[in-house]
Amino acid sequence: MRSPIPDYLTEVLDVCGGDGSGELAAYIPELAQADPDRFALALATVDGATYAVGDADVAFSIQSISKPFAYALALAEHGLDAVLEKVGVEPSGDAFNELSLEIGTGRPFNPMINAGALTVHALIDDETVRRGFSAFAGRDLELDEEVFTSELETADRNRAIAFMLRSHGIVEKDAQEVVEGYTRQCSLLVTVRDLALMAATLANGGVHPVSGERVVPREVTRQVMAVMATCGMYDAAGDWFTSVGIPAKSGVAGGLIGALPGQAGLATFSPRLDRHGNSVRGVQVFERLSHDMGMHLMEVPPPARSLVRGRTELPGGKTGHGWAYELQGSVNFVGMERVLRYLTEEPPTEAAVVLDLTRVHEVRDVGRRMLLEAVRRLVQDGHDVTLVDPEDMLEAFPDDHADGDLDAGDGIEVPVVRHR
Amino acid sequence: MRSPIPDYLTEVLDVCGGDGSGELAAYIPELAQADPDRFALALATVDGATYAVGDADVAFSIQSISKPFAYALALAEHGLDAVLEKVGVEPSGDAFNELSLEIGTGRPFNPMINAGALTVHALIDDETVRRGFSAFAGRDLELDEEVFTSELETADRNRAIAFMLRSHGIVEKDAQEVVEGYTRQCSLLVTVRDLALMAATLANGGVHPVSGERVVPREVTRQVMAVMATCGMYDAAGDWFTSVGIPAKSGVAGGLIGALPGQAGLATFSPRLDRHGNSVRGVQVFERLSHDMGMHLMEVPPPARSLVRGRTELPGGKTGHGWAYELQGSVNFVGMERVLRYLTEEPPTEAAVVLDLTRVHEVRDVGRRMLLEAVRRLVQDGHDVTLVDPEDMLEAFPDDHADGDLDAGDGIEVPVVRHR
Amino acid sequence: MRSPIPDYLTEVLDVCGGDGSGELAAYIPELAQADPDRFALALATVDGATYAVGDADVAFSIQSISKPFAYALALAEHGLDAVLEKVGVEPSGDAFNELSLEIGTGRPFNPMINAGALTVHALIDDETVRRGFSAFAGRDLELDEEVFTSELETADRNRAIAFMLRSHGIVEKDAQEVVEGYTRQCSLLVTVRDLALMAATLANGGVHPVSGERVVPREVTRQVMAVMATCGMYDAAGDWFTSVGIPAKSGVAGGLIGALPGQAGLATFSPRLDRHGNSVRGVQVFERLSHDMGMHLMEVPPPARSLVRGRTELPGGKTGHGWAYELQGSVNFVGMERVLRYLTEEPPTEAAVVLDLTRVHEVRDVGRRMLLEAVRRLVQDGHDVTLVDPEDMLEAFPDDHADGDLDAGDGIEVPVVRHR
Amino acid sequence: MRSPIPDYLTEVLDVCGGDGSGELAAYIPELAQADPDRFALALATVDGATYAVGDADVAFSIQSISKPFAYALALAEHGLDAVLEKVGVEPSGDAFNELSLEIGTGRPFNPMINAGALTVHALIDDETVRRGFSAFAGRDLELDEEVFTSELETADRNRAIAFMLRSHGIVEKDAQEVVEGYTRQCSLLVTVRDLALMAATLANGGVHPVSGERVVPREVTRQVMAVMATCGMYDAAGDWFTSVGIPAKSGVAGGLIGALPGQAGLATFSPRLDRHGNSVRGVQVFERLSHDMGMHLMEVPPPARSLVRGRTELPGGKTGHGWAYELQGSVNFVGMERVLRYLTEEPPTEAAVVLDLTRVHEVRDVGRRMLLEAVRRLVQDGHDVTLVDPEDMLEAFPDDHADGDLDAGDGIEVPVVRHR
Repeated sequence: MRSPIPDYLTEVLDVCGGDGSGELAAYIPELAQADPDRFALALATVDGATYAVGDADVAFSIQSISKPFAYALALAEHGLDAVLEKVGVEPSGDAFNELSLEIGTGRPFNPMINAGALTVHALIDDETVRRGFSAFAGRDLELDEEVFTSELETADRNRAIAFMLRSHGIVEKDAQEVVEGYTRQCSLLVTVRDLALMAATLANGGVHPVSGERVVPREVTRQVMAVMATCGMYDAAGDWFTSVGIPAKSGVAGGLIGALPGQAGLATFSPRLDRHGNSVRGVQVFERLSHDMGMHLMEVPPPARSLVRGRTELPGGKTGHGWAYELQGSVNFVGMERVLRYLTEEPPTEAAVVLDLTRVHEVRDVGRRMLLEAVRRLVQDGHDVTLVDPEDMLEAFPDDHADGDLDAGDGIEVPVVRHR
Repeated sequence: MRSPIPDYLTEVLDVCGGDGSGELAAYIPELAQADPDRFALALATVDGATYAVGDADVAFSIQSISKPFAYALALAEHGLDAVLEKVGVEPSGDAFNELSLEIGTGRPFNPMINAGALTVHALIDDETVRRGFSAFAGRDLELDEEVFTSELETADRNRAIAFMLRSHGIVEKDAQEVVEGYTRQCSLLVTVRDLALMAATLANGGVHPVSGERVVPREVTRQVMAVMATCGMYDAAGDWFTSVGIPAKSGVAGGLIGALPGQAGLATFSPRLDRHGNSVRGVQVFERLSHDMGMHLMEVPPPARSLVRGRTELPGGKTGHGWAYELQGSVNFVGMERVLRYLTEEPPTEAAVVLDLTRVHEVRDVGRRMLLEAVRRLVQDGHDVTLVDPEDMLEAFPDDHADGDLDAGDGIEVPVVRHR
Repeated sequence: MRSPIPDYLTEVLDVCGGDGSGELAAYIPELAQADPDRFALALATVDGATYAVGDADVAFSIQSISKPFAYALALAEHGLDAVLEKVGVEPSGDAFNELSLEIGTGRPFNPMINAGALTVHALIDDETVRRGFSAFAGRDLELDEEVFTSELETADRNRAIAFMLRSHGIVEKDAQEVVEGYTRQCSLLVTVRDLALMAATLANGGVHPVSGERVVPREVTRQVMAVMATCGMYDAAGDWFTSVGIPAKSGVAGGLIGALPGQAGLATFSPRLDRHGNSVRGVQVFERLSHDMGMHLMEVPPPARSLVRGRTELPGGKTGHGWAYELQGSVNFVGMERVLRYLTEEPPTEAAVVLDLTRVHEVRDVGRRMLLEAVRRLVQDGHDVTLVDPEDMLEAFPDDHADGDLDAGDGIEVPVVRHR
Repeated sequence: MRSPIPDYLTEVLDVCGGDGSGELAAYIPELAQADPDRFALALATVDGATYAVGDADVAFSIQSISKPFAYALALAEHGLDAVLEKVGVEPSGDAFNELSLEIGTGRPFNPMINAGALTVHALIDDETVRRGFSAFAGRDLELDEEVFTSELETADRNRAIAFMLRSHGIVEKDAQEVVEGYTRQCSLLVTVRDLALMAATLANGGVHPVSGERVVPREVTRQVMAVMATCGMYDAAGDWFTSVGIPAKSGVAGGLIGALPGQAGLATFSPRLDRHGNSVRGVQVFERLSHDMGMHLMEVPPPARSLVRGRTELPGGKTGHGWAYELQGSVNFVGMERVLRYLTEEPPTEAAVVLDLTRVHEVRDVGRRMLLEAVRRLVQDGHDVTLVDPEDMLEAFPDDHADGDLDAGDGIEVPVVRHR
């Protein structure tokens, strides 16, 4: 069978490819010479599958898409509090405030605007950027020297911002060097495949889906994607978050990425930009993908099956008379709340209680804690509780094959059996 | 067994109850007389369970928490485009622009600020508000006449905004009537239980978890929660979205709600406000809940089990030689992508293919479409495909007990059996 | 002889009359029906001469030109400090701040914008406005009922501002009544002749040039003209003050006034407005008058003759041997500084000193004080000083014809003779 | 006799010297080491007298007081239109716009803010600045190397602005060089005596009162003083212009100048600054001088004597029967208007008309033109007009002693006699 996914992605390119509106970024001479008709789309799942269609092998400079990744590296190196001292997380309309610095402190509103990105860059060194970005992409990224040189020649606005940041004590490094380093950061060459994998690394909690390398801690990715959600798209963050609902970032070379926590990274490339500076066809592709695939973060999923599949009476064997509860699906807050309600409203009438996780396919952290709390309370109520967990979904034991006891807190241990 | 959930919620109240900082809203005399020590917390799941602790039966005026619900009713009545013409969806810092109107058009930045809320209110009538809010809450809400009168006396700022909106042609109704109606909207009395259910109705795609009434269409709730995520908290939207990550809205009477799509609605009540106008202890409770329960929207879940549980060889029976694939967990994009990859990389070598959904506990819309596409392609490749779906997760048939054929598109029909 | 002044003014109208650009104020229906071709110019000197050419008898509504006069009346009634508490004196670009209120206090930037003018109006009552304006004009002004009604119907923006001012505690009266009163103030009917006399009353230190009535105190006119200089013209105050250099105020009905301290009041009427809301041809007339007549406040006059016309030796008569100094021109700071220098560098060598003011035509307050100080010092140095002041320029005596002694301070009295 | 002027100035210093509030400019290390108690005041008249009291010989860096003089030099070199293309003339509140650049164009609001001053500096070269400033002061000014070095080290904000100006195409020179040059401009050493003479050169229409050198054209000084009037004082332009009413400019080293067109230049030095950055005691001195000496530009002078002193019947001599009109005081617009009115209302009944200017002490340009127009019309009415002008106030003849004919336009010549 041929996978329908590339076909679907190609179809999306075809549908969105007709729009020839928008303009190349004019203010950087080298970018103004790009082929405006290039069009590519890639998708990388958090478990390492990559799909790419269109001009997927064309490399272009990463530009502002570098911002969330540099932010991630700065957070990983300095921690959230130290970075928040230098750069805020508030969305900002440029219209009122050319520099987007907080009045008084001079702190940039957020790391997705140039002032914030320069500040973030000043917190890490050039080598960290290059190695970190390469780790995000899963391959060594190269610099586009022409773009770098061209962009540095027209970087007066960034120089202005860097000196202003220095004057506020936000940046302490040499302003010219910061601009040079940031321009180098923006000039790294990527393909949509690279970008999709970089976004997928964020979506995967900081671990590269293919290499398996942990690039940044899990909590960093939460922060980065949250900021992308509110500040990622130029001048139209609210519009984007309501209509597309995917944390995203665009770049003036025509790139656009999206990260879906726990699911996938997306990337498009099409150099013609709208008046906000976002890729015209890229935005269309994302709107279509969000709509077709229900990827909007605020999408309410259809109701799932109850986590309690059923309750069966246990014969009076080893565990004595009692009840076996078969769980299924995801042990998350909503599911466990139903289990707890069930156990509360119709408490087991016999001593033995078996909780069977054989059909469970996912255990969220909060669900695990709620499950253990239920076990603890059942034991305190006088029940003999046994957990059946053939695939060790509770991550109870280092040794995959043995049965054992699980510490449920308060000194309570419950037996876990690895077969039903 | 006693449910641990109320115990947990009570513990959260205890931990956060110690902070006596913050001030009552001073500018509305009636609110300034509230008991500052009231503290309550409620949680309502999308399937109708409600937990409430603390001063859960104390009624207070809904105030600005009315904004997302009035927005929802306006969207339901007029459609997204008509409402967007009148009110934007961009976050807005009040500091630069006392009225938060777009320069030129006079369009309010978003429906969560007063200018936007007045505009939204002018789009619906008073009766719609009262009935709609009551449907969101699942009971008839009453007006607090004292608060209404007190607030109307100090509503000059809102009158100013209403007249300015009229001068821009954004509001066409009589400005004084709009302010009066909006003040009445803000003066409806609610408890944290009501608010939790109202939020849960949003989280449940517009259907009240207990009454089962559809209050607003599903797509409306997506829009409303997206706007709450970026614009819901006074003056600190970005900070809230990064640190708590739950679409929320606060009110000056001390209420605070959060909506977790597909999971639950949350509500707190504590009248002392921080300098942004958000409830001091309410914010702390949300931070704690978000942290403890992993409720941040950008939280990356741990990897789930593969959707393909296994493949077994079929004996040469009715379906001939072939393979049976057992699916488990959630048929969503990520899961189906893996199934498709598996079928693509290791295509079935025999004619008969059985896809067994017995262990599936959730089918997302995109997953269903991907599954049917896989079926269609397998049939086109010459396979005999049979679906096993005992609980009709594919929602194939009106009659729950019969086998039948499912239309996979392109005139292809595949048999579905209801037992394994 | 026919006066050349009307001929000159007519010529200015002819030269500037050709420009048909600009638009009538569209937002007030009644104003939109004005005859766009009306064109008039009037000039009133501080000693009561009035010249008017073109459509000088056409009455139109005073509109924003009422602002400086209402400000003058409020200053006269409450004093500078009380008014400054409510309204500032800073120029303000509307672009950044639709309401032009100081952030925090809500104090309007200045009395020439609507927010400031509404605040000023709220400080005085309607009767004060009508009587005061009539005193400024020298005749009873009538209300244009049609304009008043039409304008009140479209006064939502002013209502918005009035309610906002109330919400900040800047205005305490009923907001709707303030708007109605202010609209009535703006709807008073004037001709260019009236406006020229009103401006001339300011230029004359508050005394009507014809009626001789003191309308407001002298120090009030200084404040009003200073504010007109920096804030009088819509959105282009700096441009106007550099290019024209005359304190001015324009109105949307097409009027424009200028006040030249100590010289004259000017007024034009031409309803077509530029994009700032200033009369197109009115601005041209003022530019021309300023250029032709050297009326720019920063114009440096050519050097005047020395105040000391000459020194002559006195024969040894009644006053003994001595020196007579003949003064001429203006006894102001610059002139007296030269006199003092002369007396210091070449001190009189004989006992008798006569200071002859026969040829003096103006004595400024500072000059008078410097002259008396000189007299005092000469006496202290042992001189016999006599002043000759036939026309009592020093305003020494109530009785015009008698000689007498003048108190020069420190108990020193000097004889003043009324003939040379 | 000892001149009272130094005594008066000393008294002003004494009265204002008690206020020890305010802070030294902290951000430039070298300035923070100044002696905070220094206090000086100087006054220079347009005819070359200079008075200086207090620490009048202490030199300090000119800082922002350099702005109006550099603006004057740029206007002189490039003309008004070319400079207006680069820098506006609108007052600007820094609160809303850190850079004070027009949105869109990037044009600085005015030349008195740093953005405007950097742009102005970029229009002239360093040598022009040094030579021009020295000409304004009447002596060679020196650079303070320590201040220059110290200030350059903390010039990041100016560097930011310079790069931003370059990015908008407003400045084309190398940004770092512009900042260095501008810092050098600010570091020139001056005393209050220098500053008073520099201001007096502006007040004298561009000619140094002592050296007699024309430094800039007359029309340039009008523009510069107009901009000083509206934009000269940090953050409080309107307040200053209403309360003091003198075109002024302050500098962070503690200097403050004022220019009174046609009268004098003033300068104070006192390093402690208020929160706006203006010298605390300097502002007090100006308020006192403005009040005591009636120097407010909007001060309405007391009425002067009529320009027509009297009319006498001529005996039938050489000029036949007729009337002689004796003029006195200032031949300006107001005066001549009265003369014209007199001649119009009571036209001379005999052929001969003599206009006697013996007692005139000043002839303004507009007055001269009005006088000649009157002469022309009298001749056209059939009169024989003779002018008596012993001191050649009409500047009719190169040769001071001869009688002659004056061209009154339209081929009309009138005899002028040099004795009465």
